[in-house]
This record gives sequence, C-alpha cells and structure tokens, in this order.
Amino acid sequence: MVLNLLNPKSFLLPVFFIAVFANSVKAQDPYQSYRQDWLKKAEDNKPKLIETEKQPVSLVRLEKDPAAFQGWKAINTDSVGKLYNTSFKTQSGVVVDFGEHLTGYFTFSIKSLKGTPDGPARLKFTFGEVPSEVAVPFDPYKGTLSRAWLQDETVTVTEMPADITIPRRVACRFVKIELLGASPNFDFHISSMVFKATSSVAFKPPLLAATTPKLIADIDRVGLATLKECMQTVYEDGPKRDRRLWIGDLYLESLANQFSYQNNQLTRRCLYLLAGLSADDGVLLANVFENPEPHAQAGSRLLDYCLLYGVALKEYVAATDDKQTGLDLWPVAKKQLDIIRKYAGQDGMIDYQKAGKEWWVFFDWKDGLDKQACLQGLSIYALNQTYALAKLLGKENEVDDIPSLARKLKAAAYKNLYDPKSGLFVSGVNKQISYGSQAWMILSGVASKQEAQTALKALSTVKDAVHPGAPYMFHYYIAALIESGLKVEAKEALQNYWGGMVKKGADTFWEVYDPNDELKSPYNFYPVNSYCHAWSCTPVYFIRKYPEIFQR
Amino acid sequence: MVLNLLNPKSFLLPVFFIAVFANSVKAQDPYQSYRQDWLKKAEDNKPKLIETEKQPVSLVRLEKDPAAFQGWKAINTDSVGKLYNTSFKTQSGVVVDFGEHLTGYFTFSIKSLKGTPDGPARLKFTFGEVPSEVAVPFDPYKGTLSRAWLQDETVTVTEMPADITIPRRVACRFVKIELLGASPNFDFHISSMVFKATSSVAFKPPLLAATTPKLIADIDRVGLATLKECMQTVYEDGPKRDRRLWIGDLYLESLANQFSYQNNQLTRRCLYLLAGLSADDGVLLANVFENPEPHAQAGSRLLDYCLLYGVALKEYVAATDDKQTGLDLWPVAKKQLDIIRKYAGQDGMIDYQKAGKEWWVFFDWKDGLDKQACLQGLSIYALNQTYALAKLLGKENEVDDIPSLARKLKAAAYKNLYDPKSGLFVSGVNKQISYGSQAWMILSGVASKQEAQTALKALSTVKDAVHPGAPYMFHYYIAALIESGLKVEAKEALQNYWGGMVKKGADTFWEVYDPNDELKSPYNFYPVNSYCHAWSCTPVYFIRKYPEIFQR
Repeated sequence: MVLNLLNPKSFLLPVFFIAVFANSVKAQDPYQSYRQDWLKKAEDNKPKLIETEKQPVSLVRLEKDPAAFQGWKAINTDSVGKLYNTSFKTQSGVVVDFGEHLTGYFTFSIKSLKGTPDGPARLKFTFGEVPSEVAVPFDPYKGTLSRAWLQDETVTVTEMPADITIPRRVACRFVKIELLGASPNFDFHISSMVFKATSSVAFKPPLLAATTPKLIADIDRVGLATLKECMQTVYEDGPKRDRRLWIGDLYLESLANQFSYQNNQLTRRCLYLLAGLSADDGVLLANVFENPEPHAQAGSRLLDYCLLYGVALKEYVAATDDKQTGLDLWPVAKKQLDIIRKYAGQDGMIDYQKAGKEWWVFFDWKDGLDKQACLQGLSIYALNQTYALAKLLGKENEVDDIPSLARKLKAAAYKNLYDPKSGLFVSGVNKQISYGSQAWMILSGVASKQEAQTALKALSTVKDAVHPGAPYMFHYYIAALIESGLKVEAKEALQNYWGGMVKKGADTFWEVYDPNDELKSPYNFYPVNSYCHAWSCTPVYFIRKYPEIFQR
Repeated sequence: MVLNLLNPKSFLLPVFFIAVFANSVKAQDPYQSYRQDWLKKAEDNKPKLIETEKQPVSLVRLEKDPAAFQGWKAINTDSVGKLYNTSFKTQSGVVVDFGEHLTGYFTFSIKSLKGTPDGPARLKFTFGEVPSEVAVPFDPYKGTLSRAWLQDETVTVTEMPADITIPRRVACRFVKIELLGASPNFDFHISSMVFKATSSVAFKPPLLAATTPKLIADIDRVGLATLKECMQTVYEDGPKRDRRLWIGDLYLESLANQFSYQNNQLTRRCLYLLAGLSADDGVLLANVFENPEPHAQAGSRLLDYCLLYGVALKEYVAATDDKQTGLDLWPVAKKQLDIIRKYAGQDGMIDYQKAGKEWWVFFDWKDGLDKQACLQGLSIYALNQTYALAKLLGKENEVDDIPSLARKLKAAAYKNLYDPKSGLFVSGVNKQISYGSQAWMILSGVASKQEAQTALKALSTVKDAVHPGAPYMFHYYIAALIESGLKVEAKEALQNYWGGMVKKGADTFWEVYDPNDELKSPYNFYPVNSYCHAWSCTPVYFIRKYPEIFQR
C-alpha cells in the first residue's frame, strides 16, 4: 500500500493534523522517556534471517492464453541443464522457473565456452512473481508508482568466468534473462544459478487435520508461503513492494503467525518499532522503514491503522502472556484512543466528515467506498479491544471512560446506520450499502447475531452493494461471517476468493484480486502490483483458528 | 584493436598455424622452465595504482553543431552546485563535465530533499570520453563490437541517503544522468559526486623547452594525458576499450614512457607477462588479459606484433641497462625470428601471400592496404633490432645468421619493391603505393636517405596513395620522416594530424582519426571507438626525443 501524496488532500493532511493537535504537539513528546528503550528492544528482537539456497527447477516458455491468469501461461519446456550446457547466445529471452516464490538474492555464474572473452557482455534480468511480469513490456511505463519497483536489472559482465550477484533484493518465481550485448568473438554460457532465499521463518507449522478438503489445504499452503515470504526482519507488506512495515499488515500477519509459525519475537519487534517511531504528538505513523536506519514515513497518519495497533497488541499479549511488552507499549495503545474521543460527537457518531478531511482513512482499495460505517464500527471495536488489553494488564482504571463511550457509539451506530427494513447497515449521506460497512458493524457488535446473519445474507441481493476491493477488506468480511455464525458461508467465501487465486496458479496471495478484473491495479499498471502480499495471508489464521469450520 | 574472429579467414588462422608448426607445438614448450618465473616477475612488478579523487567542474549542455567534432558541442551552462542543490526530478538528462579524461570509479551520493523515500529510484548513467557519446542514442545498436562496451549503466537506488559506486570501471570526461523512475511522493537530489581516478603514473614529466610552440605543447599535453590514462596495471590499449595489453601498443607506449614518465617497472611487467603467456610453441600471443587471472587471447597470433616484441625489448634494455630482464626474455625475442626465417624465400622476399593466409597481419586499420612492403620492411627492421638486442646482451653467437638474412631481405626489397622511375616503393601485385610501404621501407633502411626523402615527398603527388588509417600507422610515418631527415615535414605532419585532434577538442588522442571522416569507425558505430588510445600517444615520444625538431 502506498500513500499517495499526489492526492492534494493527503498532501494537506499533516498540516491539518498538526494544526488540530498543535497544543499537544509542541507541548511535549508523551513517549520521550520510553522511545530509546523501545527502539533498543526492537533492535534486540530483530531476527537473524535464515538463508536457504534454491536452484531453478525448469525452463519455461511464456505463452498467451486467455484462460490463464492475466492472459499469460508459463509452460515447462526443458530442464535447466539445457541452459547451463548451451551457448547463451542462442538462449536470449529464456525464462527460468524456481518453482516457488522466493525473496532474496540472485547469483549467476557465467563462463566462456569457446574462445577467450575479449569484451564485456550485457545481460538483462527480469524477475517476476507471476508470469505476466516476465511477459509484458514495462516501457513506456504508465504506472503511478516508481518505475524502479519493477524488477528488471541490467548487468555488465566485464570478465569471465564470474559469479555475479544482483545487488538488489528481489522477490520472484520467474527470471527472464536477455542478452543485450556480447562480443562476436567468443561464446559463453550461464553455468549455474542460485537464489539465496531469506525469511525469518525457521520451521513448518503443524499439519492440518487429515479431513481438510484439498482446496482448503492448498489455500493454507499458499497463505503460509505468503506469510513466510513477508516475514523478514519486519513483517513486510510485500517482499517485492513496498518492503516495509505497515500497522494494518502487521495486525493481519501477526494473527496468521500466531496460528502458524508463532514467531512472537518478530511481532514484538514490530510493535516496539512502530511505537519508537511514532510521531512526537504520540500518534502512530502508519508505516516504517528499517534502512538506512529505522525511520517512519513522515506524515503517514492513517486513522484506521492507528486504532488497529491496540487491537494487535491485545492479540499479542493474549496469545503470549508477554505482559512486559504489553505494559511497555500500553501508553501508545491508550493514546490512540484520543483520536476516537476527538471525533466522537455528542450524538455518539464519529464525525467522519471531519475525520476524513483531516486524516487518511483507508479501509480498502475501493473507489467510492463510503467509510462512515466502517469508521464507526472500527472505533467501537478498537475501544472494546483496547479495553480488553487494559484488563489483561490491570490498567482499566486508566481508561474507565471507555466502556461507556463504546456503548454510546454502538447505540448511535445502531440508531443511525441500521436500516431495519432492509436488514442492512448503510453508510454516509447516500446510505451506501457495502460489504465493509456490514463487516465492521458486525465485528463491533452493533448487530446482534441474528441481524448480522440477515445483513450478510442480504448483501448478495443488493445489486449495487460495494464489494471488497482487495484481500485486506475481504479478511474483515470473513471475520464477520464467522462472528455471525455463518460457518458454511465463511468457508464458501474463503474458498471462492482465495481458492480463486489458487486455481489461477497463485504461489502466494496477491495484493489486489478482483475475480472479474485480473488486470486491476491501484497503480495503473498491473505488473507493479505486489503478488505476495501480507494482508492476503489470513486464510492461514481462519483455517487454523477455526478447524471446525475449515478443516473438515 | 579487436581481433575479428568473425572473419572466416581469421577463424582459420589458429588451425593453419598449428598445422604448420605442428611438430614443434607438440614436441615441447620451449619456455617450459621459465614461464613460472616470468609470470612471478610480472606479478612482482605490478604497480600499485595511484588513486586521485576528482570532482566535476561544471554542468554542460550538448548542442548540435556541424563545426564541432562529430557534430556535438558541450556548452558550459552552470556550476555543479545547481545540480547538487536542486531536485533531481527537474534535472533528468543533465550532463556533468569533469573537465578532463578520467579512468576509474564513479560514486554519487543521493539524498531525500522533501518527504520520506517510499520507493526506489531508477537512474541511468552514461559515461562519455567525447561529447557524442552522451548525445547519440546507442540503441538500436549496429556496431560490430559488444554493445556492452558502451558505458551506460542503470542503477536501482533502493534506499536514501546512499553513496553508490558504479561497479564497472569507466573512462570518461562527461557523465549524463537520466531519471528512469521515482516515487511521486518524495523529492531527492544528487548531493555529491566523486570520481576515483586511477593510473600507475606517479609524477609529471619535465617541462618542455620554453621555445616550444603552443600547438606542440598542447599535443604533448594531450599525449601525456593519453599515456597516463592507459598506464594502469598494464599498458592498456584504451581504458574504455579494450582495456588490455597488446604488443603493438606496449611498444609505442613504452617508447613514449621512456621519454616522459619513465615507469620502467610497468614496461618490465608487460614484457614478462607477454612472455609468460605466450603460446606453447613459443610464439607470442598478441594480447593478454589480467583478470580474473593473467591469460592470453587464445589464437591471437598477429605476425607484425610478434616481431615488434624484440624491438620493444631492445629499446627497454638500451634505455634502462636492465640486462637481467633482457637476458631472461631473450629466448622469446629470438624465437619470434623463426617466423621470418620460415617465410623468407630463396629470393629474399617474405612470402606475404602465404604468411597473410596463415596469420593475422595488421599494420593499420585501413581497408585495401597491401601489406607486402610493410611486412618486408618490418621483417628487416626486426632482424636488425633484435640483433642489436643480442649485441647488448652478448648473444650474437646465438643469432649469427641474422645479419646476412637481413641484408638478403633488404637487397630483395630494393630490387623488387623500389620503382626508381617514380622514386616510390610499391607493394603487391598491383604495385600499390602507400604511406605504410614507404614508412617501413625507410625504417628498415632499404631506402637511402636521399631515396627516402624523395619517396616521402613524392607521396603527396600520388593521387591514390593509401594514407594511414589510424594513428598507429601515422607513428611509423612520422618516424620515417625523422629517419629521412625531413624534420620540417615531420613537425608539420605531427602538427597537422595530432594537432587536428587537439583543435577539435581532444582531451586524449583517439584510436581512430581521419581528418576527413570524423565518424569513421572500424566497428560500424563511432561511439564505440576508443577516444583515449595508447597507440595515439607517441607525439610525446617524438616531441621529447627530438627537441631540436619539435621544441622550437
């Protein structure tokens, strides 16, 4: 996910926000005495990456096929030995398949076959997570993100034999290799390749029940791969792009991790890192970078992500009983609730009109989604979850206004957003009906179980209901189905959506997936989408947390 | 200079040659007991490169100008500070001028100016020795040499701030920097640049006499720069291309070095290296590479270069009195004379028909040059010079057939190649008249001083006389003028030819220079020509060896 600062509104956000919080900003950094300790703990918990050497498994040919995902199919043609044993001059354009998604560093060996190398060679390597990335021309580039995210690297080989590592970390399954220049006076071959794959995941999680349906098992496998690839020295949002820690991704990744790899150290590190790098008015910044040294993206104030931090911390403490971390970071979770207090009106409604002007409110990649109901629901959810955290830590006395505030917001939501006639929750002045609104009204407990079931079932009958735009929102939809007791529907929705990716050949789950528009891209060029994206890994969480629903 | 193995004839050369020398090849390596020692001495004499940090001096704009060399003029526009202090997004395509030719490693620093870097940047650097290289598009590439010689490198900058060094060694004065991709969400600048220039030259040579004409002083300066840039850990032919040691270039570079930088260690190293890497039948290979470990270009048997090795060794021993090196390498110089013995007919003429089929005979980049007279002349010259070497070393007894063989070849040359009517030497069945033929007939002493003067003066009256194609042959032409006592003409020719390059803005002398065809290229694409080329540095030798001709 990328903050679009070109959007004039989001450019103004920091200014607005600073103005609004001006007194507190300049008054004092509420975490002044903690930050150094938090950042040290983040560093102390940095996992040592596990490196695994991987070999390609075959050569493939890219073929146009309207039935294949995005129209491109990789067809196994030869063993890699054919490449290794043949002059590369006859192999330009070859595509190597590593058989799985990998994140790390690519090394190739190049050697003279005949004659003495008397000039450099120029090779272009294109790394692709999915077939289209090694089939579709990148230029002229029309995407809205940096062209440099696309993983094509040109290398000048000045001497042979040589072992050359592409300096940039790449994420891929496929590698296309093209010859852009060579001396006519000698012949050479690529004699070996190795991919040093990295992840902080050390072991395989337990097997699923033997009764697990094949498709669910496949979804779990792909979800685990997605999560493993994103688990580097932080929970990355995507190892190809944007390679950094976002609060929203952390939340979903840490849920999935808790039910699979159980790398608590990584969750702990990320929670401390985000806290240590929060703004000096105490508000969390939505995303942080590790290099050259840990730092946050200035101005990335994302309302819903701020609220999810406390939820993530609560889940972490509940799962690990690591109260020390909980107590250390409690001031941060607590502080974010001020955002809710600020926008909560006398009527119990969050003033979305105002909040939406002053903040980036995300929830989903979906043009036109009205976020009033989502925000109202998340606010209630965050209040309740953060209060549950307070109870775990014995800190209820510090937030004793929360239960009544949560009740007030809940009552207002029911009053203002529930349409008893249709049995659906509506959002905004146009009373928009969306999957997101239902999901958050259900997760927040605004809907009773019966109302929840009614609303979710009614959704499919509403012609212009706003569907989830990306797997991130789909997570909350599945969670709402489970929360409502719609087990069969939850399983079916998960199978349809993530199973759809699996059936289309996904090795890892995609950042963006619209079953009806495989070329959808929030960035105006689908090859720049991330095809291994943290927020898409949550079937792992659902399948493993609810074996009674999914594993039979 | 590049051996064109695509030429079907040159492809066959090694086969022919091996067949001809088959008995001796398989019999025994004549240097078996010496090679290891020679290579060790080559390594022991490897100079430590002197590194100098250079800063760019200005920004320039490339402008089309029919009056400028190759039609491109670099116009000084701004100080480099403008680049350093401005968003690079507004500077794409900027050309930086280092003010002089440099060889080494380019480093740039890149920093955020506004906002947090949230995506990689993609930059393209194009390094040019002359303006056209940073103005003319390289693709679609139609040259016959590897496209990879052209110095354009694309870099993905994944983090900022960063100091990034282009891994490839480059040779340039100009650097064009283009932005191929960046995130719209932050701004950045190139905050500094530094070029770590390398050379094995440690000091400046003595000043020329105060009486030296300006143009001659300029030619000397450019020649010195050319030589310095080519003097790395071997005498390279060109630091941009081909970056290796050729016997012919070594010969001319060591002559110029002897009268300027006097780095005898480098000459010694190169002589040992060539000896140690000669073919196992005792024949020298024309060019060698230092990396990954010292090795020769298999099959690069170049007849005229084999013969020049003894000449270069003689000049080295005469200049340094380093008899030990002379004695060590004497077997190699002596062995090359077998080539002359083999092709010398009963009539005293070298059988060029046969030799030309079995060898690469070079002499010049000039289509259509008949090389019979050149080869006859060089053979005589090499016999005499190698015999002079034998005398310096007290080894005459080992080559006592040489003086009479030289006399025989000389007499035959005079008889068969001199046309008393025209006063010119002719070559081949078509009795071609060329500068090269006259030069080699004079240097070999076939022509008397009077005949030499007549021939050289007559040249300009012959309408279709074959002119030198490149500075390499021009060297021998100047040497012949001096040898003939045509001092004024020598000075004039040197001023016209090398002075022509100076007047066209040369910082270093070019591999190829035809005053009437600035786009001439033996490789079908002039930007791939080398514009700092060893064999063009010899004005340094002439100007400093003959002050009475050039320095007044």
